[in-house]
Amino acid sequence: MSSLGSSVCGYVLLLVVQIVLIIVFGFFTNYSEEILPKNGNATEGLEDKKPLAKYPHFQDIHVMIFIGFGFLMTFLKRYGFSATGLNLLVASLAIQWAIVMRGCYVMEGGKIPLSLDSLIGADIAAAAVLISMGALLGRTTPMQLLVMTICEIAVFAANEYLQVDLMRIADVGGSITVHAFGAYFGLAVSFALRPSKEDAKTGPMEGSSYGSDITAMIGTIFLWIFWPSFNSALVDGADQERAIINTYLSLAGATVITFVMSIMVSHEKKFDMVHVQNSTLAGGVAVGSVCNLLIHPFGAVLVGVIAGVISVLGYRFLTPAMLSKLRISDTCGVNNLHGMPALLSAVFSAIYASVATTEVYGNSLTTIFPAMKQNSSLTEEDLHGMVIGGYGRSAAMQGAYQLSAISLTVLIAIVGGLSTGLVLRSPMMRQLEKEEHHIDDVCWETPAESDTEEPSTNLCQ
Amino acid sequence: MSSLGSSVCGYVLLLVVQIVLIIVFGFFTNYSEEILPKNGNATEGLEDKKPLAKYPHFQDIHVMIFIGFGFLMTFLKRYGFSATGLNLLVASLAIQWAIVMRGCYVMEGGKIPLSLDSLIGADIAAAAVLISMGALLGRTTPMQLLVMTICEIAVFAANEYLQVDLMRIADVGGSITVHAFGAYFGLAVSFALRPSKEDAKTGPMEGSSYGSDITAMIGTIFLWIFWPSFNSALVDGADQERAIINTYLSLAGATVITFVMSIMVSHEKKFDMVHVQNSTLAGGVAVGSVCNLLIHPFGAVLVGVIAGVISVLGYRFLTPAMLSKLRISDTCGVNNLHGMPALLSAVFSAIYASVATTEVYGNSLTTIFPAMKQNSSLTEEDLHGMVIGGYGRSAAMQGAYQLSAISLTVLIAIVGGLSTGLVLRSPMMRQLEKEEHHIDDVCWETPAESDTEEPSTNLCQ
Amino acid sequence: MSSLGSSVCGYVLLLVVQIVLIIVFGFFTNYSEEILPKNGNATEGLEDKKPLAKYPHFQDIHVMIFIGFGFLMTFLKRYGFSATGLNLLVASLAIQWAIVMRGCYVMEGGKIPLSLDSLIGADIAAAAVLISMGALLGRTTPMQLLVMTICEIAVFAANEYLQVDLMRIADVGGSITVHAFGAYFGLAVSFALRPSKEDAKTGPMEGSSYGSDITAMIGTIFLWIFWPSFNSALVDGADQERAIINTYLSLAGATVITFVMSIMVSHEKKFDMVHVQNSTLAGGVAVGSVCNLLIHPFGAVLVGVIAGVISVLGYRFLTPAMLSKLRISDTCGVNNLHGMPALLSAVFSAIYASVATTEVYGNSLTTIFPAMKQNSSLTEEDLHGMVIGGYGRSAAMQGAYQLSAISLTVLIAIVGGLSTGLVLRSPMMRQLEKEEHHIDDVCWETPAESDTEEPSTNLCQ
Repeated sequence: MSSLGSSVCGYVLLLVVQIVLIIVFGFFTNYSEEILPKNGNATEGLEDKKPLAKYPHFQDIHVMIFIGFGFLMTFLKRYGFSATGLNLLVASLAIQWAIVMRGCYVMEGGKIPLSLDSLIGADIAAAAVLISMGALLGRTTPMQLLVMTICEIAVFAANEYLQVDLMRIADVGGSITVHAFGAYFGLAVSFALRPSKEDAKTGPMEGSSYGSDITAMIGTIFLWIFWPSFNSALVDGADQERAIINTYLSLAGATVITFVMSIMVSHEKKFDMVHVQNSTLAGGVAVGSVCNLLIHPFGAVLVGVIAGVISVLGYRFLTPAMLSKLRISDTCGVNNLHGMPALLSAVFSAIYASVATTEVYGNSLTTIFPAMKQNSSLTEEDLHGMVIGGYGRSAAMQGAYQLSAISLTVLIAIVGGLSTGLVLRSPMMRQLEKEEHHIDDVCWETPAESDTEEPSTNLCQ
Repeated sequence: MSSLGSSVCGYVLLLVVQIVLIIVFGFFTNYSEEILPKNGNATEGLEDKKPLAKYPHFQDIHVMIFIGFGFLMTFLKRYGFSATGLNLLVASLAIQWAIVMRGCYVMEGGKIPLSLDSLIGADIAAAAVLISMGALLGRTTPMQLLVMTICEIAVFAANEYLQVDLMRIADVGGSITVHAFGAYFGLAVSFALRPSKEDAKTGPMEGSSYGSDITAMIGTIFLWIFWPSFNSALVDGADQERAIINTYLSLAGATVITFVMSIMVSHEKKFDMVHVQNSTLAGGVAVGSVCNLLIHPFGAVLVGVIAGVISVLGYRFLTPAMLSKLRISDTCGVNNLHGMPALLSAVFSAIYASVATTEVYGNSLTTIFPAMKQNSSLTEEDLHGMVIGGYGRSAAMQGAYQLSAISLTVLIAIVGGLSTGLVLRSPMMRQLEKEEHHIDDVCWETPAESDTEEPSTNLCQ
Repeated sequence: MSSLGSSVCGYVLLLVVQIVLIIVFGFFTNYSEEILPKNGNATEGLEDKKPLAKYPHFQDIHVMIFIGFGFLMTFLKRYGFSATGLNLLVASLAIQWAIVMRGCYVMEGGKIPLSLDSLIGADIAAAAVLISMGALLGRTTPMQLLVMTICEIAVFAANEYLQVDLMRIADVGGSITVHAFGAYFGLAVSFALRPSKEDAKTGPMEGSSYGSDITAMIGTIFLWIFWPSFNSALVDGADQERAIINTYLSLAGATVITFVMSIMVSHEKKFDMVHVQNSTLAGGVAVGSVCNLLIHPFGAVLVGVIAGVISVLGYRFLTPAMLSKLRISDTCGVNNLHGMPALLSAVFSAIYASVATTEVYGNSLTTIFPAMKQNSSLTEEDLHGMVIGGYGRSAAMQGAYQLSAISLTVLIAIVGGLSTGLVLRSPMMRQLEKEEHHIDDVCWETPAESDTEEPSTNLCQ
C-alpha cells in the first residue's frame, strides 16, 4: 500500500512547504516598526531600553506548548518518541504558518509586522492544533498531522479574527477561540477517520505504563503551573492580575475536586491517573473567557470545581460512550479537558457579560468589552470592528454575542474538521492500520534492546 | 478495619471542605483595592499598565512547589504517582487554605484582600506542608495528609505572623518560618505515628530504582535553579539582587562539597544519589535568613559549604540513628535538607544581625531590620509591630530576637506536629499497614502490565 | 592502577579547590557598587526599587544550563546519574571559577564587582564547559572533568575578553565565543584522549534505551524553548526583540528540516531520535552571532534550515567518519550541534557585518558594532578597546574581524584543548578502561535491583 518512494515523497513535500514558507516570509513579513532601527538624532534612550514586559509571559506559554503538551501526551506506553517529537514538529510548523495566517489580517503596507506579540499569538494558535492532535493521538501518520496543521491554522486564524476583531467578544484566555475550536476540530477529524464497527474499541497499545504515567505528569504540572500566564498574557494591569488570581484559584479548586470525583467514580475506588493528568487542568480552561472579569475569588473556585466534576464524569462515562456509540475516538480525552470546560466558560462569559455595568466595572468596562462603547466615543481603531460587531452594545447584547461566538466557533471547527478529515482519509494519503496504532516503532528508529518487535519495513509516511 | 463506605466517606469530607472554602471565599475575600476597577475620570493610564514586577518570581516559586517538590519525591521506586499526584492535591488544598489563614491577619473591612502577593505567600506556605509531607512520605493515607495540611497551615500562618509581623525578625528566605517549621512539624508528626519497635526499620519498598532516581533529579534541579527566586521574592532593589547572588553562590558551594562528602562517607566510596538529590539544596536553606544581608560572596559560599557538610553527614549518620534510636522515620531526610540547615541559617542571622551597624548598612538598616528604627521615627504601620516586638532595638537585641524566633518556631512546630499526629493516629482515621508503605497501588489504579500484584480491595482513605 | 587512597585523594583536592575559591572570593570580590547600601540622605527610592530587568532572562539561561544540558545528556541507557549529577557538579564549579576568571578583566580597586550580570556571564561560561563535556561524555572520570573545567574556564575567559572587549566583535548569542570554543576545545581533548586503533568504535553501552531517549527530550525541549533568552540576554530594546524573533524562527525552521533530513538519511527511512534531540537545536547556534542584526524573518528561517541540514548530515556521515578515520570520539555529537553551526554563524556574521550601513542600521549601527564609531566620537570606555581593536572600522573591516575572531577562537580552543588533554592523560590521573565507559555504576552507588553487575571495587576518581 505504501512504498518507500511515496514516503520520502511525503517529506519532500514538507521540504517544499518549508521553502515556500521562507519565500512568503521574504516577501510578506518584516519586523514591526518599533523594532526597526531609527534614523536621525531621535533620542531613543530610555524608551528603547525598557524591558519587554510580556517576555516572561511568552516564555511561560512557550513551556506549555512544547513541554506541557509534549509530555502530557507521553502517557501512552509506547508512544513517547512521537508525543515529544511530533509535538515539536507539528508546533514548529504551526508557529511559522500561524505567523503568516494571523498576519494576513494585520498587514501594513503589504507586510506582516513581526513583534513579540506575533510569537505569543503563534504559540497560542499552535495550542489549538496540539489539542486536535490529542484527539487523534496514535491514529495518524505524521504526514496526516502536518496536513491537518496547515488546514487547521488557516481556519483557526480566520475564526479568531472573526470572533475577536470583528465580533469583539471577550475571550482573553482563549477558551472559545482556542480550546473549544481545537477540541471540536480534532473530534470532527476523528469522526471523519472513524474506524469500522468492529474496530471501534480501545487498542492494545492505548494504555499507559507506570513510567509513562509519570513522564506525562511533567506535562500536566507544567501546564497547571503556567496556565495563569496563558490566561493573562493578552491583558494588562489590574485585568492581568485578576486573570492570574482567578486562574490560580480555579485550578486549585478543580484539582481538589478531581481527586474526590476520581475516587468516587473509578472502578476500584482509587485515584485514576487519567483524571489527575487531565481534569485538574479543566479549571484553567473553564475560567478562560471570564478570568479577567469580576467573578470574585469564590466564583473562580466554583468555576474550577464545576469544571473538574464535568471533566471526570466525561472521562468516566462520555468518552467510552462516544467510542462505542458514535465511533469517535478521543485518545487524550480532549472533549473532557478542553471541549466541555470551554463550553462552560463561554456560558459563564455570556452570563457575566450580560450583567456587566459601569457601576461595577468603572472605566474598565469598555476596555474589557470594547463593543459596549457608545457610538459617540468611537476611535478610528474601533470603526474597524463595526463591520460585523456593531457598537454601542448593551450588556445583554454582549452576552448574546458571547453565545453566538461559541456556537459559531464550534460550527466552524466541526465543518473545518470534517473537511480536513476527508482530505486525510483520501487515497493519496497513507492511513495507519489498526495494529500500527499507538506504536512509535512504526515511524521511529527505536533502541535495539526494546522487546517490541520492529516492523521490518518502513511504515511512516 | 476500613470499609469501602468509610473511604468514600473520607472524600465526601474533602468535598465538604472544598465547599466550605468556596463559602469562606465568598464571604471573606475580595480582590485588593488596586486591582478593582476604578470609577470616575481618574487617569489610570501608565500606573495601571506597568507589568507585574513580581510575576516572574512568583512563577519560579510555583515551579518549585509543584514540579520541584513533586518530582523530588518520585525517588521511591513505586511511589511516583503519589509523589507527583498527592503533591498536587496537598498543595492545591494548602494554597486555598493558606490564602484564608494568612489573610486573617491582614483583613480590611472584614475582607481578605487578594493580590499577587497573596498567591506568593500561599505558595510559600504550601512549601512548609510539602516539607512535612516529605518526612512522612509513603507512610500515611492521602486523607491523613489532607488533615495534616489543614492543621499545619493554621499553625504556620499564626507562627509566621508572630515572627515576621509582631517580632519583626529578618527571614526573607523563610529558613525559620518555612524550612525549620515544616521540617520539625513533619518530624513531630512522624514521631507521633512512630512504628512499633520491631517495625522501626527501612521498608522493602523504601528504596529507589534507577529510573526513579533520575525523575527525582528533575525535582532537585528545578528547586536548585529557582531557589534564588524563592529567597529573593519578598525583597526589592539592591536587597533582592544580593539575595539572588548569595543564594546562587551558596548553592554552588553546597553542591561541590556534597559530592566531596558523598564519596568520602558513602559505603562504596562512590557518589550517593540521596546526597546529590538533597544536600546540594542545603545551601539554599542555610543562606535563607541571611541572603539579603552583607554576608559577602565568600560568606555565601562558606554558608553553603558548611550546610552541605552537615547535610551529607546527617543523611549518612543521623537519619539511620533517629530511626533506630528514636523510631522517627524521615523518608526524604527533611531534617538534613531543611531542618539542620535552617537552624544554621537562624544562627547566622543572629550573628549578622548582632553586628549590623548604620556604618555598614546605611539607610537600608531599618528596611532590613525594621525594629531597629528609633522610636522617634516610627510610622503608624510600625506601631502595629510594637505589641510584642518593641522598637528601637539595638543590634544585639535584634540578634537575640532572631534566636528566640528559631527557638519559638521549633517549639511551636513540635507541639503543633505532635498534636496533629495524635489526630492522625486516632481510631477514626485509617492507618497504613507496614506492607502498604511506599506503594502507589494502595491508592492508585496502576497499569495492568506492572508486575506488582494489585491489592484486591481498596485500601485508600 | 588506582587505589582507594588516591581516589579520596582526588576529592580532597576538590575540597582544597573549593576552599581556595572561598579565600579568593573573600579577598578579591565584593558586591558591585549599585547593590551596596548607600549612606547619607540620598533619595534611593524609585531607582532602587525597579525590578531586575534581566532576571527572567537569567533564569531561562539557568534552566538551560542545569536542566537543558543535564537532561539532554541522559540519552545514554546507563549514564543518567552522571549526566544529571556530574552536569550539576561541573557547572557548580564552573560558575564559581568563571566569576573569578571573567572578573579579572573588570576589577575595580582590586575587587571583582558582583552583580546579576556576573551570574549571567558565569552561566554562559559554564555552557562552554558542558559542551566540551558532551564530546567526552562517558569516557572520563569525574576528576578529569573537574580538571578540564578549571583549565577550560581560564582559557574561555581570556578568549572571550580578547574577542568581545578588545577586538570588539559582534557575537551576542555566543556562537563564536561559547559554542565554537566549547565544541573544539572538547574535540581537542577527545583527540588527546583518543583510544588505540582497535578500540576506536562505539562502545556497547553507548546507545540509548527507550526511556533514556525520552528523558533526553526534557533537555532538548527546554534548551529549544529558552534559546531565544540565551541569544538575547546581552542586548536591550529593539535589538533584544529582534534577537528573540530571529532565534524563534531559526529554531522552528531547523526543527522542520531536521525531521525531513532524518527520514531521508536514516537507515530505515524513519525518524532518528539522535537527530531530533540535537539537530533541532542547531538553528539556535547558527543564528547566534547574527540574531540581533537585520537578517529579516526569512533570513532567520533560512539560517535555521541550513543549520538543520548540516547538522543531520554531520550526525549521519561525519561523526562516524571522525571516529573511524581520526579516532576522535564525540559522544553527543557536539561538532554537529555546536561546532559546525557556530562556524556557519560566524560566516554569516562576517557577511552581514561587511554590508552594514548607517542607512540600514541608523543610530544602532555603532551600538551593534562599537568599533565602527568614528575616532572623533570615542568615549573613554571605547579607548579601552583600542589596544587591539582599532576604531573607525569600515564595514568590510568589521567583517574581516568577525572571520579572524572565529579562526582565532577555534585555534585557541584546539591548542587549549590539546594541552588540557595532555594533563588529563598524564599518569597522575586515573583513566577509564574501555569497559568502564558510559556506565554509572563505576562512580555511583546504584539501586540494588538493577541487573547490571556492580563493580566490586571503587573505580571513581
